[in-house]
Amino acid sequence: MASAAGKTVLYSYWRSSCSWRVRIALNLKEIPYEIKPVSLIKAGGEQHSNEYREVNPMEQVPALFIDGVTLIESNSIMHYLEETRTHSRPLLPGDIVKRAKVREICEVITSGIQPLQNLVVLIHVGEEKKNEWAKHWINRGFRAVEKLLGSCAGKYCVGDEITLADCCLIPQVFNARRFHVDLRPFPIILRIDRELETHPAFLAAHPSNQPDCPPEAHK
Amino acid sequence: MASAAGKTVLYSYWRSSCSWRVRIALNLKEIPYEIKPVSLIKAGGEQHSNEYREVNPMEQVPALFIDGVTLIESNSIMHYLEETRTHSRPLLPGDIVKRAKVREICEVITSGIQPLQNLVVLIHVGEEKKNEWAKHWINRGFRAVEKLLGSCAGKYCVGDEITLADCCLIPQVFNARRFHVDLRPFPIILRIDRELETHPAFLAAHPSNQPDCPPEAHK
Repeated sequence: MASAAGKTVLYSYWRSSCSWRVRIALNLKEIPYEIKPVSLIKAGGEQHSNEYREVNPMEQVPALFIDGVTLIESNSIMHYLEETRTHSRPLLPGDIVKRAKVREICEVITSGIQPLQNLVVLIHVGEEKKNEWAKHWINRGFRAVEKLLGSCAGKYCVGDEITLADCCLIPQVFNARRFHVDLRPFPIILRIDRELETHPAFLAAHPSNQPDCPPEAHK
Repeated sequence: MASAAGKTVLYSYWRSSCSWRVRIALNLKEIPYEIKPVSLIKAGGEQHSNEYREVNPMEQVPALFIDGVTLIESNSIMHYLEETRTHSRPLLPGDIVKRAKVREICEVITSGIQPLQNLVVLIHVGEEKKNEWAKHWINRGFRAVEKLLGSCAGKYCVGDEITLADCCLIPQVFNARRFHVDLRPFPIILRIDRELETHPAFLAAHPSNQPDCPPEAHK
């Protein structure tokens, strides 16, 4: 589906877990795209500029320009890719209950964890309390994810095929490590993370492989 | 699709906006269900009991027992209803870009607003700051929703048919009023809210019409 609508452009920040989810999905779907970096820290955050607010009124990354339209919100974007790129690798199972399990895991992460340890929220929480705050919400969410995985994981989050749940989980594990969350109580999460850390689509989407990753942050 | 798997049961709290979304969707789809109230305030919150944790490891409402399976997370549940009840009123448009717009609005609310003004988060923010905190995030999200609606709203959030976006918007407007958010800067949101406040499916789902609504809270 190479479109006449121009190149696919992802507005992304190297360390943003929401951008990372979409990078993985684009890679798994083998959709070529250009990265337009939006620095969340430079000059108080380029996402708050008048220009970028026209792209994404939530003043967040990611945003994706594709097929002539601009889309925001990572889960919604991934569903769009799934519904339009039907001939490439599916990222949702065919079975409706399994699809619900995939979406549950996505939603626990995208509504129950990430929004609470988002940079913009941590600024409001304050320097002193931010690490404990982030750890608290990640631990709470990961306890639920580990429990859900106990009844649906195979090689990956839901069965033996990579799904949108894996696109959400791996970036969240990276965030958990940044906030020094003890991951030993979550053996299934850790196993899936190890399984996917060398997968080409996940590796190419990793923060340290982004054009806007600062040299000092490279692995 | 009356199933041999028993009655459909919604674990719900009268004032929970996430439960409310699912109540609206069940009503719109004309799926009969029983409410099993889970008090978020009694004895520190019944959602934290060992028994309920087995139903929903996130220790939140809603959870839905349907077709023999237990589902959690409101957006995921609504997608399940949409994918299994294909002969009743559709809650997602057929057009793929419009579907993305519906999901964007849902996700702005379910990831960008509600998790930040959730009861469990407000307890952590503390009594003194909680109102300002909630107002801040609702205002930020509603500015984005109003902007998105500017290019996709018809009679309802996306075009002239009720969608999942409306199921998410109306409960969030109620929350905004609870926190005394000035809604005058959001004329499209207000218009859609007025449009739907007397719709039978929305009315039946309203907190004041729930079996666990305390008498003193009735309209």
